[in-house]
Amino acid sequence: MKKSIGAGTFLTPTPVWLIGAYFEDGTPNIMTAAWTGICNSSKPCAYVSLQKPRATYNNIFKTNAFTINVPPVDIILETDYVGTISGRKIDKFEQIKLTPVKSELINAPYIEQCKLIAECTLIKTLDLGSHTLFIGEILDVKVDANAFNSAGKADMKKINPILFGPTEGQYYSVGENLGDAFLTRIVDGKLVNMKEKNK
Amino acid sequence: MKKSIGAGTFLTPTPVWLIGAYFEDGTPNIMTAAWTGICNSSKPCAYVSLQKPRATYNNIFKTNAFTINVPPVDIILETDYVGTISGRKIDKFEQIKLTPVKSELINAPYIEQCKLIAECTLIKTLDLGSHTLFIGEILDVKVDANAFNSAGKADMKKINPILFGPTEGQYYSVGENLGDAFLTRIVDGKLVNMKEKNK
Repeated sequence: MKKSIGAGTFLTPTPVWLIGAYFEDGTPNIMTAAWTGICNSSKPCAYVSLQKPRATYNNIFKTNAFTINVPPVDIILETDYVGTISGRKIDKFEQIKLTPVKSELINAPYIEQCKLIAECTLIKTLDLGSHTLFIGEILDVKVDANAFNSAGKADMKKINPILFGPTEGQYYSVGENLGDAFLTRIVDGKLVNMKEKNK
Repeated sequence: MKKSIGAGTFLTPTPVWLIGAYFEDGTPNIMTAAWTGICNSSKPCAYVSLQKPRATYNNIFKTNAFTINVPPVDIILETDYVGTISGRKIDKFEQIKLTPVKSELINAPYIEQCKLIAECTLIKTLDLGSHTLFIGEILDVKVDANAFNSAGKADMKKINPILFGPTEGQYYSVGENLGDAFLTRIVDGKLVNMKEKNK
């Protein structure tokens, strides 16, 4: 039995990523985004949806570039705070003591304290009303040297991302590992993860 | 010190949502999506990026409608499996014993076993190369009667969503609650969550 909660942005959970871009005068800025995700594989693209009044909206139109930074749980207060104030009034990096690093590939800053970052060049925008989708081609992804697992892949627990629940307006961490994707088959009429089966 | 892992869809984590749509003959179908998210607030919109060979790609073009279903961890095998096979060959709902429910608002099926679902009408598509963004206006969100918290909001732990880590190809659950969003302020030079402070 399902109850309607109305027409709203209640899908859950979303990522919580920090978007980095420069002001025209070169001041680095970041903002928090939850309306963000991957949207194409070849070429690799990600999007962020931004409202017109946001400084980052203007900044990306001017620079054609942005970074996506995955903040770890230990900077959750910084992450929440930079989503509530405007970089027009204050240098957010300076105020909250995060470290901007100038990308060598694009005209945008990334955040030293985030263990996984993507450098994006703007390829398309799409105005949807309240928000405009900024679609960026991912030119490179960089991971902290100490955030790889033993198989040489970026390690979820070391990156330690934050999630957002739009239905309640709360943050969450990532929980337990539930195993490998794309390996479920039907064996004797039952769904089985083949890696688990062959262990 | 950051190491390049190349240009790829390595941002983490993503949602794992099931996309419901009808074939032209009325057979209900679902597929797993991780390139999906919220993209507009007013009107509320969500997107899913689909490759041309997918049955769901054709189905949404024909019906102009789709549902987004948030699968709970207890149907992770079903969720993984329906991302690896095509509904053109097999009735996925029948094979894995999930229950399709015809939406009363749109021409698409939702999944009874998912505790949070959104009914979307297609408003725009955008071809990005390998994938096409299907942007749907969310006409309604429905939640299981037993998946609300004591404040009357959809409860993350009861919805129990699955996450995907594209960097390692693994699934995760949602972890601990990290508190309320949008309440961090600077007090005496320090970042403080005001709700925590006033407890």
